[in-house]
Formats: sequence, C-alpha cells, structure tokens
Amino acid sequence: MSMELEPLADILIEPAIRAALAEDLGRAGDITTNATIPATARARVFINARESGCIAGLDFARIAFQLMDPSVALTIHKPDGSDVAPGDHVATIEGPARAILTGERVALNFLGHLSGIATATREIARAIEGHKARVCCTRKTTPGLRAFEKYAVRAGGGMNHRFGLDDAVLIKDNHIAVAGGVKPAIERAKAMAGHMVKIEVEVDTLDQLREVLAIGVDVVLLDNMGPDMLGEAVKMIDGRAIAEASGRVTVKTAPAIAAAGVDLISCGWITHSAPCLDLGLDFDMLSTS
Amino acid sequence: MSMELEPLADILIEPAIRAALAEDLGRAGDITTNATIPATARARVFINARESGCIAGLDFARIAFQLMDPSVALTIHKPDGSDVAPGDHVATIEGPARAILTGERVALNFLGHLSGIATATREIARAIEGHKARVCCTRKTTPGLRAFEKYAVRAGGGMNHRFGLDDAVLIKDNHIAVAGGVKPAIERAKAMAGHMVKIEVEVDTLDQLREVLAIGVDVVLLDNMGPDMLGEAVKMIDGRAIAEASGRVTVKTAPAIAAAGVDLISCGWITHSAPCLDLGLDFDMLSTS
Amino acid sequence: MSMELEPLADILIEPAIRAALAEDLGRAGDITTNATIPATARARVFINARESGCIAGLDFARIAFQLMDPSVALTIHKPDGSDVAPGDHVATIEGPARAILTGERVALNFLGHLSGIATATREIARAIEGHKARVCCTRKTTPGLRAFEKYAVRAGGGMNHRFGLDDAVLIKDNHIAVAGGVKPAIERAKAMAGHMVKIEVEVDTLDQLREVLAIGVDVVLLDNMGPDMLGEAVKMIDGRAIAEASGRVTVKTAPAIAAAGVDLISCGWITHSAPCLDLGLDFDMLSTS
Amino acid sequence: MSMELEPLADILIEPAIRAALAEDLGRAGDITTNATIPATARARVFINARESGCIAGLDFARIAFQLMDPSVALTIHKPDGSDVAPGDHVATIEGPARAILTGERVALNFLGHLSGIATATREIARAIEGHKARVCCTRKTTPGLRAFEKYAVRAGGGMNHRFGLDDAVLIKDNHIAVAGGVKPAIERAKAMAGHMVKIEVEVDTLDQLREVLAIGVDVVLLDNMGPDMLGEAVKMIDGRAIAEASGRVTVKTAPAIAAAGVDLISCGWITHSAPCLDLGLDFDMLSTS
Amino acid sequence: MSMELEPLADILIEPAIRAALAEDLGRAGDITTNATIPATARARVFINARESGCIAGLDFARIAFQLMDPSVALTIHKPDGSDVAPGDHVATIEGPARAILTGERVALNFLGHLSGIATATREIARAIEGHKARVCCTRKTTPGLRAFEKYAVRAGGGMNHRFGLDDAVLIKDNHIAVAGGVKPAIERAKAMAGHMVKIEVEVDTLDQLREVLAIGVDVVLLDNMGPDMLGEAVKMIDGRAIAEASGRVTVKTAPAIAAAGVDLISCGWITHSAPCLDLGLDFDMLSTS
Amino acid sequence: MSMELEPLADILIEPAIRAALAEDLGRAGDITTNATIPATARARVFINARESGCIAGLDFARIAFQLMDPSVALTIHKPDGSDVAPGDHVATIEGPARAILTGERVALNFLGHLSGIATATREIARAIEGHKARVCCTRKTTPGLRAFEKYAVRAGGGMNHRFGLDDAVLIKDNHIAVAGGVKPAIERAKAMAGHMVKIEVEVDTLDQLREVLAIGVDVVLLDNMGPDMLGEAVKMIDGRAIAEASGRVTVKTAPAIAAAGVDLISCGWITHSAPCLDLGLDFDMLSTS
Repeated sequence: MSMELEPLADILIEPAIRAALAEDLGRAGDITTNATIPATARARVFINARESGCIAGLDFARIAFQLMDPSVALTIHKPDGSDVAPGDHVATIEGPARAILTGERVALNFLGHLSGIATATREIARAIEGHKARVCCTRKTTPGLRAFEKYAVRAGGGMNHRFGLDDAVLIKDNHIAVAGGVKPAIERAKAMAGHMVKIEVEVDTLDQLREVLAIGVDVVLLDNMGPDMLGEAVKMIDGRAIAEASGRVTVKTAPAIAAAGVDLISCGWITHSAPCLDLGLDFDMLSTS
Repeated sequence: MSMELEPLADILIEPAIRAALAEDLGRAGDITTNATIPATARARVFINARESGCIAGLDFARIAFQLMDPSVALTIHKPDGSDVAPGDHVATIEGPARAILTGERVALNFLGHLSGIATATREIARAIEGHKARVCCTRKTTPGLRAFEKYAVRAGGGMNHRFGLDDAVLIKDNHIAVAGGVKPAIERAKAMAGHMVKIEVEVDTLDQLREVLAIGVDVVLLDNMGPDMLGEAVKMIDGRAIAEASGRVTVKTAPAIAAAGVDLISCGWITHSAPCLDLGLDFDMLSTS
Repeated sequence: MSMELEPLADILIEPAIRAALAEDLGRAGDITTNATIPATARARVFINARESGCIAGLDFARIAFQLMDPSVALTIHKPDGSDVAPGDHVATIEGPARAILTGERVALNFLGHLSGIATATREIARAIEGHKARVCCTRKTTPGLRAFEKYAVRAGGGMNHRFGLDDAVLIKDNHIAVAGGVKPAIERAKAMAGHMVKIEVEVDTLDQLREVLAIGVDVVLLDNMGPDMLGEAVKMIDGRAIAEASGRVTVKTAPAIAAAGVDLISCGWITHSAPCLDLGLDFDMLSTS
Repeated sequence: MSMELEPLADILIEPAIRAALAEDLGRAGDITTNATIPATARARVFINARESGCIAGLDFARIAFQLMDPSVALTIHKPDGSDVAPGDHVATIEGPARAILTGERVALNFLGHLSGIATATREIARAIEGHKARVCCTRKTTPGLRAFEKYAVRAGGGMNHRFGLDDAVLIKDNHIAVAGGVKPAIERAKAMAGHMVKIEVEVDTLDQLREVLAIGVDVVLLDNMGPDMLGEAVKMIDGRAIAEASGRVTVKTAPAIAAAGVDLISCGWITHSAPCLDLGLDFDMLSTS
Repeated sequence: MSMELEPLADILIEPAIRAALAEDLGRAGDITTNATIPATARARVFINARESGCIAGLDFARIAFQLMDPSVALTIHKPDGSDVAPGDHVATIEGPARAILTGERVALNFLGHLSGIATATREIARAIEGHKARVCCTRKTTPGLRAFEKYAVRAGGGMNHRFGLDDAVLIKDNHIAVAGGVKPAIERAKAMAGHMVKIEVEVDTLDQLREVLAIGVDVVLLDNMGPDMLGEAVKMIDGRAIAEASGRVTVKTAPAIAAAGVDLISCGWITHSAPCLDLGLDFDMLSTS
Repeated sequence: MSMELEPLADILIEPAIRAALAEDLGRAGDITTNATIPATARARVFINARESGCIAGLDFARIAFQLMDPSVALTIHKPDGSDVAPGDHVATIEGPARAILTGERVALNFLGHLSGIATATREIARAIEGHKARVCCTRKTTPGLRAFEKYAVRAGGGMNHRFGLDDAVLIKDNHIAVAGGVKPAIERAKAMAGHMVKIEVEVDTLDQLREVLAIGVDVVLLDNMGPDMLGEAVKMIDGRAIAEASGRVTVKTAPAIAAAGVDLISCGWITHSAPCLDLGLDFDMLSTS
C-alpha cells in the first residue's frame, strides 16, 4: 500500500469504496456475472495503460476488488507516481472471476479518475521543472473525493493547498470589503484562528500587496497577474511571505509564471477538469469452472 | 426545483450535499468568513457563466446554500438544460453573506461538474441532430455521484444507460467465454434476471451479431465498429433489437456513427472526462453590517 | 455461502445484520449470558426444522453468529432452497457458547422470516408446476428487507419483479388518467426511461389490453381477471408481450390462472404475509467452562 | 401524531422511513410517475380498509408521504388502535399527486405490516377479555423494526416484553446448565445487572418453579405447561412473582391459559407471523395539471 | 479482551473508536508522522501510569491501535479493574511505529477518560466498604459515551443505574405534580411500561416515602436526605423496596450515607466530573528503519 | 445562536445531539414522561447556575429540546462566554412539558460539560491577565466532542491548538529520533505538508531550541521548562518563532509561565479533566393538561 495512504485506508478510504460499490451493485448485485460465471471460476487480469500518464490510486482498485472477495491479490508493477506508456502493465490481479468482473468498474472509476489528476499535475510540474515553483491544487475538487484527489496531486508531484475552510485562512476581496480594510480583516483572522493556522491574503495589485506586506502574513496569493507584474511582486515580497500565483494556469502559461520567481502556482484545473486516464482490464486467464 | 429531481431531493440529494459541506467545513468551519464577516451582513450575488455551455445542477447549488442558512433565496434565470453564453446570469442568490461565502465552493463544485457533463452531452447531441440516434451514458461515472451525473446527461439531452450492475443485464465477451457460448449465457441471464430486466449483449463482429439475433435479446451493443460495419449491422438487426454503438465516440466521429442508423451511441467520456463548466460568483451587493 | 448472495455479503448483508444485532444488544449487551456463561464455554447446536418448509437465509444466520465471534463455524446440511421436514437438522453451529446464545435470536429472526417467504413461494410454485407460468413477487415487502426477501423468493423457486420504483416502468390507471391516455403515458415513459428499462402497463379489460398491444410494451399486467378472461387475454397477446397475472393469487387459485397460459403470476402475499418458518436451536453440547 | 410515538418521531422513526424510501426510490426515483404525472397535479386519496382489523402506524404513512413532499396533509379518521371494517376510510391524504403516488407503497408497507400486528394482538386480547391476563410480545420480531412492532402490539392492546438483550434478564435452561444451577445463575445475574433490572427465569416443571420461588425473582416464565399445570403453578407462586405463560399460544388456546390465572401470556406469533392487514389507496380526486 | 466487553466490541465499540480516529486524522492523516517516520520503522512502547488509580478501557486502546494497523500487539499487564501506582506498566504495545504514534492520542483519550471514571468510582466504593451499600452511576454521562462510561463504573466496582430513559421508570416530583399525585403516576407507569420494567420513585420526605410504600414500587430514591433521615427511611422501608440514596455524594459523605443502611448510593460526579487518569506512552524501542 | 457556531449547526452539531438523544431514548423513549405527562401539558423552566462559572453550549441545549419538539423556545439570559454566579438564570425554556422533561438530561449533559471546560479555561485566562500569553488547548479531548470542546475553550477566552493530526505539524522527540535529527525531520515535514501548514517543534532544552531556531520553524513548544529557563528561551527566540509553553500548567503555575514572556500556554487539563459546571432545571410553570 502506498506509504501515505496507509494510515487512512481503514478509516477514510474503505468507506468511500464501499459506498461506490453499493452504488454500483444496487439492490440485486451483478446479475450478469452471477448468472453467467460460476462461483468457482478464477481469473488473472492485467490493468493496462491505454495512453501515457501518471498512475495514482492503485490502493483504491485493490480495496474495491478485495471488498468483493478478500482473496483477490493485486500485484503492482507501476506504483502510484509512476509514469506509464500505452500498453504498460500497471498491475496484475488474480482471484475469483466474479469478484474481478463485478469490482472492475468501481476499481477503474477510482483509478482512472485519480490517475487523470496525477497526470495533469505532472504535466504542469514537468513544465516548470528547473524553477523553484511547485504546482499546487485548490478546493475546486469533486464533492466527496477531496482527500483522495489531493493525494493524486501529490502522486503527480504537486503540493496541496487547504483541505477545507477550516485549516487555514484565505482572505479575499469580499472579506476585506466587509471587514473594512485589509488590516482589520487580518487582525480579526489572527485573533480567531490561533497560532497554528496560516494566513493568506489574495491581492490583485501591487498596491494591495504593499499594504498586506506591511501588516505581515504567511502567504500572499497573487491573482491573475501577468509574468512581469509577478516578477515585481516577488521582488517586493523579498522573502517576507510565501508567494503563490493563480489564474489561467496551463501547461503553456506555467513556465513564464514560474520564471517570475513565485513559490507556488495553484491551479483548479488539475482537480476539477483533468480527463480520466484511459486504463483497461485485459484478461490473461479466465477459467471456465 | 427541477421536476425530475424533486422526489429525490430529500432522500438522495441532500445527504450528498451535506457530506460535501462537511468535507469542506472540516471541524472548525469557515474560519476566514467567521472572523471577517459579521453574522448580520447580507449579500446578493450572481452565478455567472464564464464560458458557453449547458446548465445542470442548480438545485444542488440552492440546497448547498440553504443548508448553510435556510433563508438564502436562489432565483433561477437559466434553468437546468438551458444553454448559456459567457456573461449570462444563471441565477441570483440573496441572503446572509456568511452563508453565501461559506457555501460558495461546494455549490459551484456541484454546479460546475454537472454543467460540464451536460455541456459535453449536448455537444454530442447537437452533432447528431437530425438522426434518430440518441447519445447515452455509461457506468464510467465519478464514484458517489452516478445518479447526479446521469441526471446531468438527461439535462444535456442524452439518455441513460444502466444505473448499476443490477438493473439490466449486459453480457460481454468474458461472460460468454466462461458461460460456454452466447446461447447459454443469454439463457442463464434470462432465467435469473426475470421478466422486468432487459438483456443486452456486446458484439464485435457481424457473425456474433447474427448469433445473438438468432437467440433474441433486447439490445445489442455494437462495440468499436466503423460506420460501414455499423450500417451493415443495423440492416442485419432490422428492428429486432435496439442497436447501440460504442467505442471512440467524439463530437467528430458521432455524426457518421449516427448516420449508420443506430438507435443509441454510448459514450463514457461525457461523464468521466467532461471538463467543469466555468461558472463564478459575482457580488452585486454586500452589506457591511 | 449461497452463490447468489456472495457478492452482496460484505456490502449489503453485513450492515443489515449488524444493525439487527445493535437493535437487540442495545447499550449493555446480553446481560443474562454475560452473567451466567463463562467466556470460555463452548457449544455445539443444531438449527432444527420444527415444521415442513423451504430454507432461505442460512448466510444471514452465519454472519449473525460470526459478528458475535468470528470463530463460530456453521456447517450447512440443508442449503438455501432445500425442502425440510420437522426434525431435520438444517445446520450445525459450533463455537463459543456466548456468541451462540447472544446471536441466536437475530440469526433465527432472519432465517425464520426468509424461510417463511421461501416456503410460501414454493407452495405456489408447486401448485403451478407443469405450466409455463412462474410465480413472482411484488414491491409489497417489509421495509428495509426488500433485497433479502426477493432473494428468498428466488430460493423458493419464484422470480423477482421490480426491485424498486427506478428499475422498470409500471404504468397503472392513475398514471394513464393524468397523462391523458395510454398512448401519451407510454410515450412519455419511453422518452424518459431509456432503452435499458422495461415498460409494463396494467390493464383491467380486454379493450385496454387491445389498446396497449397496439402501441407496444414489454409486459402487460392483467389485473384481477378470471381464468377465462385471462385465457382470452393470452390469446390476444399472442407472444407480443409478456403476460403477467395478478390479483387474489392463492395456492388454490393459482393453478387455474397458470392454466390460462400467462407467463407470470405475481403475488404480494408471499412477501408481506408469509408466516415465519418454525426453526429452533437445539443444544448438542454445552461445556460448562 | 400518536401520543406515544411523538418523542421518537424525529430521532427513531424518520430515519427508518427515509431508509425505506431510499430502498424503493433506488438511484433514479419513480420513473413511471415522473414521466406521466406533471409536477403540478394534485390528488386526494383515501386509505381504505379492505378487511376487518386494528390500525397501527398512521404516523409512518404520514411521514413517508411528507418526506416526498412536506405539503402533503393526512387527516386521520381511524387513529392507531381503532377497529376498522372493510370499506372504512382510515385516513384522507391530499397533496401533490407525485408525492402521493411515489410514497404510496412505502406508506402502505409500514401501515399494513404494523396494522397486521395490531390486529393479531387484538384478537388474542379479545379472546382473553375478562381475565386478568394480558397478551405480550417477544423478541421474535422483524430485524430493524422491533421498536415499531412493539408499538403496534401496544396499539392492539398488548404489553411489551424486553426490547432487547440488555434491558432485563431472562434466564433459560442453558444458562442454568452452564452456571451450575438456578441459584448461581440468579445470583450472578443480580450481581451484574443491578437494581434497576428485572430478572425472569424460565421453568418447565413445578419442581423448577419451587426452586426458583425459594430464591426469589421478579418474573417466572411458565413454558409449555398445559392449563392444569399452569393453574397449579399460579397457586404455588401466590403473588410472589409475576406469572408469564408461553408456548403454543393461539386465539383458541389463549382463553384456557388465561383462565389458569397467569398475569401475562407471551406470544411470538403476533410479531413474526401476523399477516399484513389489507389496506389500499383509493383516489377521490386526481387533477390532470 | 475484557469478558464483559467482548460481545459488544464489533457492534458498539469499534464504530465509536473509528469515529474518534476519523475526528483526529481529519482529511489528511498524521502528516507529522507520515513525513518523519518510515513505514517500516517499528516500536515497542509501554503504557505507564503516572499517578495512582484504577484502569478501565484497555480494549479501546487496543482497538484504536489495531484500526491503524491490525498487526499491532497489545500485551496487558494491568487488566481493567486493576489498581495501579505511578510508574506501573499497564500494557506493552509493539508494532509499526507509525500506527503507534498516530493512534496514541485516541487510545490514551479513551483509556485516560474511562480509567478516570473507574478511579473515581473505586474511591467511593472503598470509602463504603464493609457496608452493604454499593455505589452506582446516573444518566449524567458524556454524550456518546454512556455505555462505555457505565462499563468503567463497573470496572471500578460500582453498579449501573438506568442506561437510558427507556429501560426503567423513574418518577420525579414533576411527573407526580402533573399526573395528579403519586398514585396515578405509578399506576400509569405500570400500565404502560409492562412487567419487565422496574419502577422507581424519588421522594424528599418521609411522608412521601410512606405514601409510595403503601402503593408499592421496586425502588425508592431518597434524595438529599441527611444520614439520620436516611436511617429512618431505611427502617420505614423494611425491605419492601430497594433503598437508593442520592445528593451531594462525595468520598467524605459516602460512609455516613452507607452506614444508614441504604442499598445503593448514586452519584453523578463519577461520570461527569472525574478527572482523566494520567497515563502516558513511553518508548522502549524505536527502530529507525 | 452563537455567531461562531451558526454555520456548523446543521452540518456538525445537530447530528451529534441527535446521536446523544438516540443514546438516551433507546428503543422505547422516555417511558416515565410518556406515561405520566399528557401530550398537551406545557412548562416554563429556568436553566439556573448552581455554582459560579462560565457558560458555553446554550445552542446545544436549545437544539436538544427542539429536536424533541420544534416549538420549544429558549430565551438566553447569559450567552456563551458569560460569567455566572449561583442562582443566576442562564436561560428560560418554554414549550411542551414532555419535550422539556425528555430532552433535559441530554441538554444539561452537553451544557454542563462544555461550561465546565469554559470555566476551567477562564480560570487560567484570568490568572494570566496582563501578560501577552494566551491559554490554549490540546488534542487531549473527549472522543467525539473535540470541535465542541474547542469551541468551549474559545468561549472561556482561550485559543485553539491543532484540531487534528492533519492541520498542522508538531514534531516531537520520537519523530526527531527516527528521522535522524531535527533538520531532516523539519525538512521532510516542509516537503510533505506544503505552504499552508504551520510547523511546530517540541524542545526540552535550550540547545535543542537553538538548533531548531537555526533551521527556522513557525512555533516552538517549550515543554516542561521552569519559568527561568522559559525566560531564557523567550530571549533566545527573540520573535523568530511563536513561543508555546506546556507541562504542569495550573492556575497557580500559569502566572509565572506567562511572566516569562511566552505567547501561548497550552494545557490538556482544561478539556480532559474540567469538572462539569453544576447547572439545573427549575420549573417555573407546569400545566397539568
């Protein structure tokens, strides 16, 4: 099991997979497989890559199959975080044919979705290699899957932003407007959130940035600034805060943003719009009894 | 509320939104908003389209905001199924500023995701307009969101395939291999599944199709056939079964598939890889007390 | 484990048994057994039939005991679907005495209830043997136990009707009245439900039947027709739809209904009013330490 | 709402009905009603008795309809505990037609099941009228529905026995055998269970009864004794314990058992095998728009 | 595993620990341990007492660690109910270092809390040793933990009062006032609650006590009476009911209350205000790989 | 409703109160109240302080009563965070007598527990008034109640530390030992946890402190240092990190710790061992019909 996922598996991951299986099995289960495949039939199948990408979520696939039958064995050839090419064997699965056929869709739905996110993340990460900037995710995630999608971002080489509204402060223009200015907004946040919580403020202009830096925060979010303005901003920050850039980040725009010297480039696209990585199950052996 | 979603709202939809809000609020809630926005502040915001597409999921947005505060009102300008252009007001939301700021991300995560699926579906649907073929979805859906994604497909003008492994039979090559042929596979399925369950068989060749038609099934899945072969298949079927085509369906390939005369074109891409539709919240009024 | 139940066990069945055990254990558990039986005592008991009938639900009994203690072993002598006579050993259970005494009631409540349904189903099935008609169940099931009761129907030799409101269309007189006729009702259903969903229409008269057949549906429900009228209906249908008869079906009336040539005879009684099959636990060995 | 159920409604009853609705709605809801009935159509229906019996569970029906649409109104004509004759209007329901059609089956499944139990209880209660004995239930209940079935027993005029293994001690022969006699068994139970828990011991013979009375318990369960032996037992007990009779209790055998002077007659049949009371929905008004 | 907890472990205890772990792990798990401790590192630690007291809850600690990793072994040196002195090894835990470090806080939170309750109970129990009186708990427990806290009371040598509002009747002054007197209150309770439920009445004066005894109940709660008045009450009761004293019970006041001859002394303090017992984890071995 | 709790009420708080009510109502509800109090009786009661302290948790009390009956009104006289003296009216509750009597214990169990924590926090906070130091809590909380206990700490004037293992890094000696030193431990944590997560390191000596400061972290935990050593530590830190002191913090020791100049004083006692604040319900009016 992936080292990072291990301590969460029993508590957080299994219930999600259980729910996905219940969603697929409905009230009567896999009536096709139960009618056509004897309970004694066994199978060996490969999870194969049908396109290039980065793998994430093999433990989800394994747990899906093992919830169908604990005797299913999954041997990993390309662990989470690996690059794969079309045709690569990602894993071999062996066990009761029914469990494999019935669990297939849920296993692949998780694995393809998370690998898609890892792949998108890696593309950005590769594009900015050589710069100190790291790509990071946002809270623009699929409802119910946030922790898993954030894991996929890490598997693809990215960093995680906030996991929720409660684990860090991010002050935006509306907060500032109602609070009556940047200063009162930051002060109230510091008073309420306590010493273990980081505070980030979003700025759109260098004037705003100057004001925020004078007060002092942990992170500044430089939103929708072009590379030149970002460069000026980084100079102005001069190490007094972490510099995070956001807005219209693509594989094409990322290198220039990174070159401006920011610490982080955050990007909603990698979680909310990454296409599924095309992976399929190919049967290597399927006994008929 | 959308007519179709109404009877599911209290039983199926609200629990999912509640879970998504719990995922985002964590253990301490929106510490930024609670620190900076007084409980008495009120806001009026627009949900605006930032790109063209088809809307689906406004009830999810409404329920998300109302779970934060039941007094939030959402006025719909572009109901589910509407086409929108960049800048269009999709809905107006009015209520306590905290509820709106705190619920914003979950509301948009649902709405953007489902609208993305509706948009992708509509693109295919438009591409095959004039033919009798309808686009339909698969079980390649995001874990936990299947029923909602299938609703989005309908909102975009598509049809739904099976909701799970239990509500129809779909016999594939592996089932046939183990069952000892098409005939025993279909017979066992009919014996087990009963008279209220449709039976579909996947075929890759015209020979297989001929065999299946001789036995008689409700639907045939013509997998990965080119337009010409599809045309022959449709002729061979001659109304004795519903003809569903699948495999490498895109906006570009769909018209030729539809022209071959099939009844349905099924497509995993519209649910598992449709990018989020870009929608945003713009503040029209934000009181400071 | 019963072949059919296997893939559902971990996902659907165990949670239901867990809930039933929690209902019986309450907040303090089996205070009688805990006070009087040492943790080391072991027992071997028979599940014995006290009357004739058909067994269904042994896996539920096994899981109930094993949730109390995973080391309990259950050896099946009369698997699900078997006929039993008074005095027959249905299964032997061996393990810690506490687990067996504490789990006994929940195990027998499931097993007796499901065997009662299997027994009632088999009585009807036997009464119509020799005819092509099969007995099938309805949605008149005990809240929370539908999937299990439908399994018991299959164990008794019956077929299943819809599992819920979502997996097939059944149009009744009220739907027709509001939709403005049989034709618009069927057309709307076909448009909404899609190609994988069967459509059944209930008819009370031969005129209605004629109208429905002219439009074309998968199944017709011939409600409360006498044997003669059923015979005419079957002739009129002539294989163009599946013929299902319902209304006042008992062991006595079933043969005449079946003789009319229908395909299915549906019957609410077998699930909502079948008496529990009388099964009991008899101790073969009970160690005192 | 029934006075007794009121404080449990929000905490215990609603979740069970919600689960039953989810079981029936599945993933796509009532596709028949949604396709054929406009969201604006309204209906007024009667719940009518189709046979004689005793009503229990109207709140379950009401909550089922109101979970579909909170605007549904249910007017009760025959409250829980009432006797009904065939044709009697039990309640009138008025509201959106979709909510009524979609909620109908779950509402009637609860109401028919619980009314069946109330009816069976009342039959026994009537049979022993004039004697001091009261009929009471057992733990032989339908998994998941125990508290509701015990309410139905009270509605039918019966008393409740233990709700679970934890709220009273009931020592049977196996407990005595392992504990090394009646005396150590009772003493251990008293030591563990504490002063707020009643202790009952099952006896099959007058000798056992004598032994138990000498030690002192709250209740004795006189199992499978004929009327004469029961009479002797009651004399022997002479008010020192509550006398409960059990075993082969039917409407026919109950009067003689009651005449023997016992305080309670317990009976598993009324909960595990009572047939559903036949109740149906008849439409009084159904608007077409 | 503690004999008493065994049958509840899988059904009641594990879900509570799972929830506590989810509360602590949040969405990302133990980021400190995952970053700094290799998955292969192993550890052996002692749970040590840092002050004197009575142990309760070792199974909770064990399950917490094993939910993190099923291979963690916990060897018990001081089982539940044992007295410990500062420095005593209570248990040894051995297994993967990550599982131990991540599970530590939840394990100790349960163990310290329950041991605190057992310790407080034992102090009162010791103070009244030699008298027939037993200390017992109340319903003044921590929300969500009642059954576990009542177990800790038993581990400390106390008895349990009601587990909830449903398993015994306790009539207080307000019930009497509204019911129109002690007699109608008791009669209504007897009529509703049935023969397996004990009835207790709270009295503040000897006159009230006389009235209650004349009617007859199972238990009288002598509230806030001084030792002399308690002595008179006990004489007046003369074995016709169980005598329970309550009000301002401390280690200092308990002996005089016990000396008055009551059967039970109930005390809210032992569950709602017992300080946590100070227990800590000391590492005996911690491998670095 | 308390401003801070508002956005969590529906999502986080209500489910916890619902569970506590289910724990208390069991399977049969408040049989005493249901038997003795008519459904129409109404009551007005005060929540009164019986000792001095600080209030926290009135919303929990309100929700508990309103889940019993939504018409119960709670008027707050001493809002959360208020100091109270014996005899003070904290709130007035008016509504159906049954709802108030049945909900009383759960309401008070929450309110007393949380007020106890607020009271303990305030005592420490008062003891260090005039210094810049703030008292803060730990993860030593009651399982299942952490977020609520941390709210009570804020109500009492304290600050919150981490809510879980996932929202900040806290490196202790064992992490350092296995990671091979302070430097690699901190570096690995920074690499994994990302830019929105604070990093704290526990140090026992000034040498360790110097090493940590040289690397740079957000917070240092000065564990078990005496006031003099703390003073030196604060001087050494010189604003480069937040200084948190822990270990044997009591009302007596806190002033000297605060005087040493630290920023935070963390203290497990205020959550895990604060005695319940004594609050009671006194009836002002109780109608008998």
